[in-house]
Amino acid sequence: MKIPCEAELLRIFIGEKDRYKGKPLFEAIVQLAREKGMAGATVLRGMLGFGADSHMHTAKILRLSEDLPVVIEIVDQPEKIAKLLPDLDQMIEDGLVTQEKVRMTVYRNTKKKS
Amino acid sequence: MKIPCEAELLRIFIGEKDRYKGKPLFEAIVQLAREKGMAGATVLRGMLGFGADSHMHTAKILRLSEDLPVVIEIVDQPEKIAKLLPDLDQMIEDGLVTQEKVRMTVYRNTKKKS
Amino acid sequence: MKIPCEAELLRIFIGEKDRYKGKPLFEAIVQLAREKGMAGATVLRGMLGFGADSHMHTAKILRLSEDLPVVIEIVDQPEKIAKLLPDLDQMIEDGLVTQEKVRMTVYRNTKKKS
Repeated sequence: MKIPCEAELLRIFIGEKDRYKGKPLFEAIVQLAREKGMAGATVLRGMLGFGADSHMHTAKILRLSEDLPVVIEIVDQPEKIAKLLPDLDQMIEDGLVTQEKVRMTVYRNTKKKS
Repeated sequence: MKIPCEAELLRIFIGEKDRYKGKPLFEAIVQLAREKGMAGATVLRGMLGFGADSHMHTAKILRLSEDLPVVIEIVDQPEKIAKLLPDLDQMIEDGLVTQEKVRMTVYRNTKKKS
Repeated sequence: MKIPCEAELLRIFIGEKDRYKGKPLFEAIVQLAREKGMAGATVLRGMLGFGADSHMHTAKILRLSEDLPVVIEIVDQPEKIAKLLPDLDQMIEDGLVTQEKVRMTVYRNTKKKS
């Protein structure tokens, strides 16, 4: 059986409409994660929520808002996660980032034709 | 670079159709989180799943079920999360709540016009 | 108020199109979780992402890809989670699994007609 290794889960809570240099911020972050060789990144879209600018919403706007929250999840070794953080600091204007320790098991299909 | 602080991630697993005082439970919980001044809340909708009442489903009903699972994620300081829990105890009839320690970094755009 | 117990959160990152014995892998995993009597399982579909085979994607393919990432979340006591792992080892070809300790509170509606 596979043995898990120590890793870190990075979760980035931003708005779907947040932008960075002309493109959606969530997309820019996923591309950054790929360029830095992260094991994986997943963007989940919320159906409701509020974030950093919650003081601007009434309950009604909240429900009708088209700027839905998105969560980007990135898992990798702590050293690799650490290298992402300075860039994220520059890219995120409003948002929330969490980090936590996890055990990680990676499965790679070595049988697939390349 | 920003320094993360200790925080807690609260995750609430309920059904999309669960209700509380005439409104969707997930919406009631997000409103509660806003009223209590939490840093953020995000509702994610599952595409498949089972929960507390899993004994009632067959695999077929599971797939066709319209009561999809939702996950509400709330991050804040442990003391603030703790203040939410007694209310959640009253509101949730069937569900599952998890709490875990995370490190949190909050980004606020102070340049935005208010 | 309810007292949380120690539990484990298992998160499985795979592709929506991954298959196992003729059915979607995510569905096979949820059925396994039910058969093993897990407290709950939730499948979340990502809107964007990359995983184990990231080296095969360009940014453009990434965006257009129909094989979106899915995350399956399963929470239960560590002993029960441990019993799932050998089966997952057999089922997952490409993917990533994380485990982490959480505190869990389970709500069951005992008033519902059975």
